[in-house]
Amino acid sequence: MKFGIIGAGRIGKIHAANVAARKDCSVRFVADADGAAAKTLADETNAKVAEIGAILASSDVDAVAICAPTDMHAELIERAARAKKAIFCEKPVDLSAERVRACLEVVKSAGAKLMVGFNRRFDPNFAAVQARIAAGMIGAVEIVSITSRDPSPPPISYIARSGGLFRDMMIHDFDMARFLLGEEPVSVSAMGSSLVDKAIGAAGDVDTAVVIMETKSGKVAQISNSRRAAYGYDQRVEAHGAKGMIHAANIRETSVEFAGAQGIAGDKVLNFFLERYAAAYRNELDAFVTAIKSGGSPQPDGEDGLRANLLADAAYESWRTGQRVKVV
Amino acid sequence: MKFGIIGAGRIGKIHAANVAARKDCSVRFVADADGAAAKTLADETNAKVAEIGAILASSDVDAVAICAPTDMHAELIERAARAKKAIFCEKPVDLSAERVRACLEVVKSAGAKLMVGFNRRFDPNFAAVQARIAAGMIGAVEIVSITSRDPSPPPISYIARSGGLFRDMMIHDFDMARFLLGEEPVSVSAMGSSLVDKAIGAAGDVDTAVVIMETKSGKVAQISNSRRAAYGYDQRVEAHGAKGMIHAANIRETSVEFAGAQGIAGDKVLNFFLERYAAAYRNELDAFVTAIKSGGSPQPDGEDGLRANLLADAAYESWRTGQRVKVV
Amino acid sequence: MKFGIIGAGRIGKIHAANVAARKDCSVRFVADADGAAAKTLADETNAKVAEIGAILASSDVDAVAICAPTDMHAELIERAARAKKAIFCEKPVDLSAERVRACLEVVKSAGAKLMVGFNRRFDPNFAAVQARIAAGMIGAVEIVSITSRDPSPPPISYIARSGGLFRDMMIHDFDMARFLLGEEPVSVSAMGSSLVDKAIGAAGDVDTAVVIMETKSGKVAQISNSRRAAYGYDQRVEAHGAKGMIHAANIRETSVEFAGAQGIAGDKVLNFFLERYAAAYRNELDAFVTAIKSGGSPQPDGEDGLRANLLADAAYESWRTGQRVKVV
Amino acid sequence: MKFGIIGAGRIGKIHAANVAARKDCSVRFVADADGAAAKTLADETNAKVAEIGAILASSDVDAVAICAPTDMHAELIERAARAKKAIFCEKPVDLSAERVRACLEVVKSAGAKLMVGFNRRFDPNFAAVQARIAAGMIGAVEIVSITSRDPSPPPISYIARSGGLFRDMMIHDFDMARFLLGEEPVSVSAMGSSLVDKAIGAAGDVDTAVVIMETKSGKVAQISNSRRAAYGYDQRVEAHGAKGMIHAANIRETSVEFAGAQGIAGDKVLNFFLERYAAAYRNELDAFVTAIKSGGSPQPDGEDGLRANLLADAAYESWRTGQRVKVV
Repeated sequence: MKFGIIGAGRIGKIHAANVAARKDCSVRFVADADGAAAKTLADETNAKVAEIGAILASSDVDAVAICAPTDMHAELIERAARAKKAIFCEKPVDLSAERVRACLEVVKSAGAKLMVGFNRRFDPNFAAVQARIAAGMIGAVEIVSITSRDPSPPPISYIARSGGLFRDMMIHDFDMARFLLGEEPVSVSAMGSSLVDKAIGAAGDVDTAVVIMETKSGKVAQISNSRRAAYGYDQRVEAHGAKGMIHAANIRETSVEFAGAQGIAGDKVLNFFLERYAAAYRNELDAFVTAIKSGGSPQPDGEDGLRANLLADAAYESWRTGQRVKVV
Repeated sequence: MKFGIIGAGRIGKIHAANVAARKDCSVRFVADADGAAAKTLADETNAKVAEIGAILASSDVDAVAICAPTDMHAELIERAARAKKAIFCEKPVDLSAERVRACLEVVKSAGAKLMVGFNRRFDPNFAAVQARIAAGMIGAVEIVSITSRDPSPPPISYIARSGGLFRDMMIHDFDMARFLLGEEPVSVSAMGSSLVDKAIGAAGDVDTAVVIMETKSGKVAQISNSRRAAYGYDQRVEAHGAKGMIHAANIRETSVEFAGAQGIAGDKVLNFFLERYAAAYRNELDAFVTAIKSGGSPQPDGEDGLRANLLADAAYESWRTGQRVKVV
Repeated sequence: MKFGIIGAGRIGKIHAANVAARKDCSVRFVADADGAAAKTLADETNAKVAEIGAILASSDVDAVAICAPTDMHAELIERAARAKKAIFCEKPVDLSAERVRACLEVVKSAGAKLMVGFNRRFDPNFAAVQARIAAGMIGAVEIVSITSRDPSPPPISYIARSGGLFRDMMIHDFDMARFLLGEEPVSVSAMGSSLVDKAIGAAGDVDTAVVIMETKSGKVAQISNSRRAAYGYDQRVEAHGAKGMIHAANIRETSVEFAGAQGIAGDKVLNFFLERYAAAYRNELDAFVTAIKSGGSPQPDGEDGLRANLLADAAYESWRTGQRVKVV
Repeated sequence: MKFGIIGAGRIGKIHAANVAARKDCSVRFVADADGAAAKTLADETNAKVAEIGAILASSDVDAVAICAPTDMHAELIERAARAKKAIFCEKPVDLSAERVRACLEVVKSAGAKLMVGFNRRFDPNFAAVQARIAAGMIGAVEIVSITSRDPSPPPISYIARSGGLFRDMMIHDFDMARFLLGEEPVSVSAMGSSLVDKAIGAAGDVDTAVVIMETKSGKVAQISNSRRAAYGYDQRVEAHGAKGMIHAANIRETSVEFAGAQGIAGDKVLNFFLERYAAAYRNELDAFVTAIKSGGSPQPDGEDGLRANLLADAAYESWRTGQRVKVV
């Protein structure tokens, strides 16, 4: 499968490298507004620099990986859909659910295939949790608990254009909750505040938040987020059911422990998302390639992206109004 | 210190045995509507059976441990307060916050000392979490997470008169949240359902519930409860702050692990609250005795009991109405 | 069952308290060369002070717990055997295997019942390891590994009369190895040195030692000992077999863990043997009482004591000569 | 750096792939008696098939990775040394210490640089243990404990030509013991038997073995090996010192745990050495490349290989004779 990579930033580099490392795929073109970045990435992956339009028009491109800034996603998806390319797009499709809906209509009309990059579903640990739930290990799921904390907050400048914690960071957890619950949450209640950095609050956002959700059948989920964790990138999930509980613990830097006069000490958890989710990104690409090659529909798709958006919107609304919010 | 034990049931037996095991304390009298139970416990603790009135009137009694049914607590506290006894009372003071307030007025007027039995504060693990927070180990607390799941649900008959999950079971977690937050929650949102046993729902209660709360300064707490956990009595707390995270893990039956072809397996967590909290009950008594002997005020006191009640009421109200509820 | 306690030191106090706490047992007499110590312990356990001879002659005594200095054990066992008392004796029976053999002859002739205090067999964790091995969980045992390290070395004065590390400290591990192997070691090789304190080496002993042993059928065991462990009282066992591995991990002071910028830290392991093995001492007494009351033979018995002595002698010999030593 | 890969089997493929993945290295030639295997690997790494002689004669080759059968190692090292190539050779240099010594003389005379592939030194976990010991974390090392168990035994045909467990499998642990002790063992005692498969015993080898060693200053080490572990590839090290203990635990397949009615179960440990030591192989290559490029001497070198051989020989001798064996 021949890829065009649109966006040569941090995440574009990951996907390009993973494509290039596969025997059954290659990177043909790289596009980026920053020509030097595009050139470097193209060189590293044996590809050529090209304009987006040229990539979409090329018969030598089967699929595109959209790694451009968020506000370009929806339009690029639409253009790629019309160009009959298989589409992998980083989350979110757009910050506006309306815009997402319109975009998905175009994808549908074009009969295009779209996968949205909720990479955490492909983490071997979280994927195993879901697979074991699906296999009946804990019986019916009753409570899902997700803890997700970044090592340190992004720059304030990023906060402003990110859509805020609920839409930018917790959106991964909304998708994970849906993935593990196996049923749509219909009600959301959120609380949050700026305890890490007052400037985040001044920018109209929160850096610390908890959310609870319930599904129609009464399953519940809880999410906790912080923009800062002294001990690394805290990523845990737990599901409780009729027959027991299953959880995925954090991944530490090494398995080494020191026992001394002060107690017993192990390493911090892996600090950086690229390292923590390196396998997830590879597995995500594999799922995309496998689905496209077999004529199937890659998951998670645009609808999954939309559902996570709606939950994020509801959480934001709940936080803003102090009321519980129903999700249609 | 000489004790009168009021109530010779399961919890009365624990407190009586702990009193009798101390060199500085003795059980003088045991009262119970079930005379045989009172006799057995009195015999085991070198004490005599007596009526409640006689215990309260005896000059040979310094303190009473009220272990009678919940609906007798408030009246017994008032009578003991007027009788100038030091009072240890099992939680809750009463299911009605109004009744609690009235009772605390009587205690105050009488100048009596009252400790309410939130035993979990005295669990060595949870106490260590609080002590290390107080010592500044994690900096300012930002998120408190409490997981509390019973091994199996009580009989439906008990559900009916218990006051419901929020007031009977989660009340411990409300107290724990206050203990770890160090600040009063002012807002509560609850979701719950009956997933364990439909009969619990039919009785107007939930068996699965999640709650979020926030304090005035923006600290948040999350609680999850289930009336059933296949793996034992699940009791965990976690606090996240500026400098890190601290948590108390479950206690397993043994430290033994088996590594075999199916993986690596350890024991279930301690299944029974009397075993899980054996040390907590001893330490709780010690705190009571130490406070009374030194002329201090035992903690947690009636006000702590009232605050937990108010949070439980708010959670119940939130669950019932689907709205967030403010706590005054 | 009515006990006479011979020896009111540290270990005598434990056994006396455990006897006194049982509903089916009582302490009748306490003997000790130090009259004040005997008086204190007798008062605490509702007993009387008596001479050893008087205890052995008393018809009000069913069993004796011999907690006197090691060099008195063998003679006291013989006297108690002749006096037809059930005998619990702290390890070892004697430092000399010859003396042990002679003593066991007397016990046998008298038809007396003797239990030797290898308390670790009764630790709930180690007992569970043995029980699960016996139940076939790991199949045939192939490798037993025992790690045993004291928090800090005893005084040099103690070293001199202790019989040395192999006979005083590792003797517990020899018994544990036999307990878990289920077969007698027939060959022993030991290495050791004084790395903790040169004075221990000057006293003719080691403070750091490793031993390997094998049984006739080819099962192997390894033991490591140190007289000092900065992180507490290190007590671990592991058994490897055809179907897997089973181990008992150390017990920490609390289940609390702190995750901060330096990593993730838990508590030290329990530091003091009385605390670490509190349950073991209770269970050991229970095994003794149960065996005697049911007319059975308490285990471990004098023969177990002798076998551990022989292994300790062989290890000492191996260390001294640098040769592997056969055990008959 | 341009590599010639000699040997296109399992381990040759790993090294070739790691070389090819580096931006500063390339595979130029692949040699193997099996031409098809050589062709496949050459194709995968953008290289050409060549005879060994041609590789050694080529000016387009800076370094060779010797991944041929063990009995060819010494001769290939000598030829490569004379051809002035940097040499990476899989362990061991040869099964005979005499042959190793002769080979190292040739390397020395030729002024060649030789690294021997004790890959476990480069495992991030074990490397961290050694680095923290070197940094003084546990003070002076006193006891090193190494547990190393294969998931399942090799074919009997392999046993016969492997040199036996001590020389083929435990040799890694001898190197690890030296790595962690920081001092040469001078005395070795070994016990072993065939408990996994009688046919291994019939072939003159053991499948279960324990070894103890001591250094001149009195440091001790213990090693346990089994050719079979139901729970995966068991690879643990522990070092005990004046200030505490440091250990590297096993690596599990995922971080997922299931808590159910039977207890709490996690995954098996990683089962396959290529997976368990994937990072180690990359880091090992990096150490080789870095040392050669900087003009330094790669570690571990031929002398390290020889020392491990001598310890393996001593262990074999000790097992065979039942005597402790000194190592010169």
